[in-house]
Amino acid sequence: MISEQYKNMLKGKSVIRELAEFAAARGKEIGYENVFDYSLGNPSVPVPKEFTETMLDLLHTKSPAELHGYSPSLGIPSVRKKIAQSLNRRFDMEYTENHIFMTTGAAGAIAHALRVVTQPGDEILTFAPFFPEYHPYIDLTGAVLKVVPANMDDFQINFTVFEEMLTEKVSAVLINTPNNPSGVVYSTETVKKLAEILRKKEEEYGHEIFIISDEPYREILFEGVDAPYVSNYYDNSLSCYSYSKSLSLPGERIGYIAVNPACKDSDLIVSMCGQISRGIGHNCPPSIIQLAVSEVVDLTSDMSVYERNMNLIYNKLIELGFICVKPGGTFYIFPKALEEDANVFCKKALKYDLILVPGDSFGCPGYFRMAYCIDTEKVERSLPALEKFVKNEYNM
Amino acid sequence: MISEQYKNMLKGKSVIRELAEFAAARGKEIGYENVFDYSLGNPSVPVPKEFTETMLDLLHTKSPAELHGYSPSLGIPSVRKKIAQSLNRRFDMEYTENHIFMTTGAAGAIAHALRVVTQPGDEILTFAPFFPEYHPYIDLTGAVLKVVPANMDDFQINFTVFEEMLTEKVSAVLINTPNNPSGVVYSTETVKKLAEILRKKEEEYGHEIFIISDEPYREILFEGVDAPYVSNYYDNSLSCYSYSKSLSLPGERIGYIAVNPACKDSDLIVSMCGQISRGIGHNCPPSIIQLAVSEVVDLTSDMSVYERNMNLIYNKLIELGFICVKPGGTFYIFPKALEEDANVFCKKALKYDLILVPGDSFGCPGYFRMAYCIDTEKVERSLPALEKFVKNEYNM
Repeated sequence: MISEQYKNMLKGKSVIRELAEFAAARGKEIGYENVFDYSLGNPSVPVPKEFTETMLDLLHTKSPAELHGYSPSLGIPSVRKKIAQSLNRRFDMEYTENHIFMTTGAAGAIAHALRVVTQPGDEILTFAPFFPEYHPYIDLTGAVLKVVPANMDDFQINFTVFEEMLTEKVSAVLINTPNNPSGVVYSTETVKKLAEILRKKEEEYGHEIFIISDEPYREILFEGVDAPYVSNYYDNSLSCYSYSKSLSLPGERIGYIAVNPACKDSDLIVSMCGQISRGIGHNCPPSIIQLAVSEVVDLTSDMSVYERNMNLIYNKLIELGFICVKPGGTFYIFPKALEEDANVFCKKALKYDLILVPGDSFGCPGYFRMAYCIDTEKVERSLPALEKFVKNEYNM
Repeated sequence: MISEQYKNMLKGKSVIRELAEFAAARGKEIGYENVFDYSLGNPSVPVPKEFTETMLDLLHTKSPAELHGYSPSLGIPSVRKKIAQSLNRRFDMEYTENHIFMTTGAAGAIAHALRVVTQPGDEILTFAPFFPEYHPYIDLTGAVLKVVPANMDDFQINFTVFEEMLTEKVSAVLINTPNNPSGVVYSTETVKKLAEILRKKEEEYGHEIFIISDEPYREILFEGVDAPYVSNYYDNSLSCYSYSKSLSLPGERIGYIAVNPACKDSDLIVSMCGQISRGIGHNCPPSIIQLAVSEVVDLTSDMSVYERNMNLIYNKLIELGFICVKPGGTFYIFPKALEEDANVFCKKALKYDLILVPGDSFGCPGYFRMAYCIDTEKVERSLPALEKFVKNEYNM
């Protein structure tokens, strides 16, 4: 009576994991500092010192029973309030603590948001290129993920195909801006047009179509980029956030859902999330991490390194003749490979100790992702290897 | 398209929550120290100082990027190894790190264990009295919880009724020893007989029947109690553990599943849990808490207060004429109320500032639970109130 469903999931091979294993093994041979590992989205810059100071302060001053006691299942009220206030200051919203549900990172946030707004059999649309974990997030709710093909010109939305795919069965649209893997940020024009189409279809179909906005890279923005806050443009929206990237805390599993106060049933959704938690055993994130994060809600790690790395890599890629959309944020870039099969391309790159990830699992075959959340010094050393790879293998 | 399922769950009233709210409100009137609040299972003794010291040490000595980076989704290998070794030392098992899956407390552990061994439509048996959260844990997997009525004499298992209910549809039996709410510990005789029946039925039905053993109170045992480790007696068993009670860390959400190495597919189950996590957005518990706990795996908080409190309360209850099974562990006791409807009984107790929880939601109407994880001094002050309540209301 072992579940065949989960047993079968074990058969799928993770390309990223295989690459990471290669990088680790190669690192043992030549020193990891000589492996140009662009495979993983693990932030390289430290958490702000204020976070660490708050952790130390909590451990020194609070009684253990008080510090480590049960948090209410929706999150600690004072923490939820500080987050609401910070969002209001920054994005001109009117959240209260009752619109904030604390989660174990964006994965927890999306898992809850999906269950709030879908029934088994519903369709969820997302846009290529997309984070491959959307598949298990959605598959295990019983809803069906449908992927709108990418607009290769600029990785904004292909609205023609989107409108065709936006049938009555669609209950939510899952977007991710700034985007993993492309680094592209949806423009105000894109978000406005998306909202307009959804409102029209909501009226036509007589039911809500929610935007689930996956926003872990919201704070990693490059100079001059137009980066609208999605909930400013659409009422039925749930923002799913994680501090993993903005505070460099991916291991501590902390994030939240912010329910748009103008959303249908906005007064119920956070409590519904609490009920969902009871069934998936999530409960809330650790008390001490909630308390520490609440003291740094307006801060981020120093993320200037990511823009510096992006410019170095982007300029080199263009110089070498790659087709590539310039990222507006994140620590990813998503160029077109130099041959049709990006898997073959990325395999050849391994010979030059360059770890690149093929775009197939992101819904864009023929492209590849580089995660440049690594030291700038290493990025600089990798560029000659990139050049050598391209010249040797592709005579460019 | 808001989910009606979760919306409907909001209608259920939580008796415990209402009592906690009453206690808080009454505390504002007369001082919380004068409210004899026996409603909540929040440990009152502090975490061992070694835990806090490890946390401080990690924050002082590890680089933030290293400390707060992604943990592998099954848990940090060194942490899983230390837990396996500790269990082997203490319970004569042969776990390796590959049998340990790190979870956010026992809730996370049970949520994963259930999904590993059940299909929608399967039946799960548990024994009254039982932790009411088993309902949402099981309901949301699509399986069906069936409750074997309590054996009121001693809260061991009513095997006659159990065998009748153990049909071919049952894929798992969920047990909780030491038990919330009764405080009773299953004897070696009980566990052996349970195992024997299950093995017989496995053979008869031609499929596995798993024991999911919910063990958050495993370390809270009173003098001289026979407390067998369930997996020593049955191969197809998954132990679900939480450090919430043994280390007084309920807010930090940390626990694990230990898969019996002799269990069917024991080499796959932990990886399957990893797949389940992808779908329910659980991922693993926070890195820093995993690392800190791994340094104190053989320690517990000083839990002598619980046995002291139990003896005070048990003796008083018996003196006052209550029918009550003596707890062998935990910080709960579960006496019979002095009138048929325990809700009425508990409501009357509020007049004496005694917060008692009716047994209905635990599957035992007519009984009530006292959670005595409070200061002994307060227990002592509560006894005259208990006596006054009983004498005034029931002329006893």
